[in-house]
Amino acid sequence: MRLPIHSLSLISRSFSDRLSAIPGRRGVCGAAMRLVQFCRQGDEGGVRVGVDRGEGLGVIDLKAFDPSMPMTMRELLEMGAKGMQCAQRALEVSPTQCVVPFAEVRLLSPVLAPEKVVCVGMNYRDHCLEQNAPIPKEPIIFSKFPSAITGPFDDITLPDESQEVDWEVELAFVIGRKGKHIKEEDAMSYVAGFTVANDVSARDWQMKRNGKQWLLGKTFDSFCPLGPALVTTSAVMDPHNLGIRCLVNGVAVQNSNTNQLIFKTEQVVAWVSQFVTLSPGDVFLTGTPPGVGVFRNPPVFLKKGDVVECQIDQVGVIRNNVV
Amino acid sequence: MRLPIHSLSLISRSFSDRLSAIPGRRGVCGAAMRLVQFCRQGDEGGVRVGVDRGEGLGVIDLKAFDPSMPMTMRELLEMGAKGMQCAQRALEVSPTQCVVPFAEVRLLSPVLAPEKVVCVGMNYRDHCLEQNAPIPKEPIIFSKFPSAITGPFDDITLPDESQEVDWEVELAFVIGRKGKHIKEEDAMSYVAGFTVANDVSARDWQMKRNGKQWLLGKTFDSFCPLGPALVTTSAVMDPHNLGIRCLVNGVAVQNSNTNQLIFKTEQVVAWVSQFVTLSPGDVFLTGTPPGVGVFRNPPVFLKKGDVVECQIDQVGVIRNNVV
Repeated sequence: MRLPIHSLSLISRSFSDRLSAIPGRRGVCGAAMRLVQFCRQGDEGGVRVGVDRGEGLGVIDLKAFDPSMPMTMRELLEMGAKGMQCAQRALEVSPTQCVVPFAEVRLLSPVLAPEKVVCVGMNYRDHCLEQNAPIPKEPIIFSKFPSAITGPFDDITLPDESQEVDWEVELAFVIGRKGKHIKEEDAMSYVAGFTVANDVSARDWQMKRNGKQWLLGKTFDSFCPLGPALVTTSAVMDPHNLGIRCLVNGVAVQNSNTNQLIFKTEQVVAWVSQFVTLSPGDVFLTGTPPGVGVFRNPPVFLKKGDVVECQIDQVGVIRNNVV
Repeated sequence: MRLPIHSLSLISRSFSDRLSAIPGRRGVCGAAMRLVQFCRQGDEGGVRVGVDRGEGLGVIDLKAFDPSMPMTMRELLEMGAKGMQCAQRALEVSPTQCVVPFAEVRLLSPVLAPEKVVCVGMNYRDHCLEQNAPIPKEPIIFSKFPSAITGPFDDITLPDESQEVDWEVELAFVIGRKGKHIKEEDAMSYVAGFTVANDVSARDWQMKRNGKQWLLGKTFDSFCPLGPALVTTSAVMDPHNLGIRCLVNGVAVQNSNTNQLIFKTEQVVAWVSQFVTLSPGDVFLTGTPPGVGVFRNPPVFLKKGDVVECQIDQVGVIRNNVV
């Protein structure tokens, strides 16, 4: 089951008043924008990059605005400043013939097929307290395969292989330009923007099997809902002071603030870039606050028919049915 | 430092007599071929797909043979039978104007930018015995980021961040078509072919840090030399009965046989496809035999100036300088 598309316009509207650039928070892109990937209803194969106009005013199809623009976010990011400037111009001009009404839009994950999905474990103070775990002295890094990514309003498929599928709302960010050995003070200039993720986790596979390597429990198909937009760095006041919540069937199960993050965006970028070259489109999930199902007494896990909603202030809302 | 290119022709020659298709071993491609990715010397950016003619007779540039063919192996695999048939025809016809002499070829990894690099840990009986570890009852799956992949004769860069970089020769295979929940008896029909990998590992990061999640220690840039060719399934007599060796500075440090594999190709494909959809180009590293540096007494690690050579009978040889 898909959620009604018109709910998207409500989401955009609630954040649209913050869409002017915030001085001092310049990432790859100096402009405040909500970039999306979408397909038109009935053209499910055709990925397009768009700019959300906010206020429910529809999405600008970037390739319709400028045919030299690419079809995917990853390619747009790889273009660097030229791509971002074009998106900004498209938003300013907003020619009617390039605007797709929300009723005709199916939003996809803002990034598809990244080279990496990098995840940070145990990265909220209050989440460590919840499980009586020490505060890590270094980030704990694991990964999902890109095949786990699904859209902001697509279904989470419960696999037959797990009985313990859990939710994890997370602030995600997307890399905007290539870099290695990035310094903390330069890190934000490598970040294109932020989005909302659900780091769906099969606890049996993560914690008890596979030699305690977390990968398999984290990477079933559909275990990484992402979106609804890539919100450029300039459009987020302070990424490390945002309300972050997860609701299951309308009940808040996680409710914290990104000010509880142990390793912040800049530190995570600097840390991981010691090991690997970061590339445009790389997705980072920064960790989850307390309230996950596995640490409840008794534990609670997702079941078919549940609806999981992940919310981060200023960034957006994703909502996924469990099937 | 690069190794002399003419050594490639020696490698091809030694296997060329086995290049007729082996009945009963049909993967994605029924033909026996050694497919490569290469760039011409002096055109370092230009990736091409080629078919090794063997006997030092050069490489057929597939796009020169048929302009409708793609530039990369992943795209060729995504084409399915059409791409493989074209490669086979190119090998049969071998028009002079499409043959690039080995002296002008720089071999790249046979696959670049796969969606996944899937690795199996603790998958050789004799390697488990070496470390007094029990034989696993299920495959242990971890991963590298695709950014770790480097060419068959490219350098392994020792990172400043590790003092314990180790070698691991491994039989690798490449997925040729999309699949989920693949049965063991069908698994080989999803495999395009085999290649040689070195699962270079920073033991300090793998075993002692990062919350014992192996990823970081396994995924430094250049920690996945791969090649020299994608040897189609039909060109390998029995992938589970091949001599497998690693030499450091000419001294054999690993010397075993793929008949020691606990979980064979078919089982690994079936296992992993329970969790994730497999896609053309996905690279699997199947695990390493005994003789790694960390379990020696005293432990031995790679240092600048070392040359690591990984050999698998019928599949090929890769050789990487440590810098």
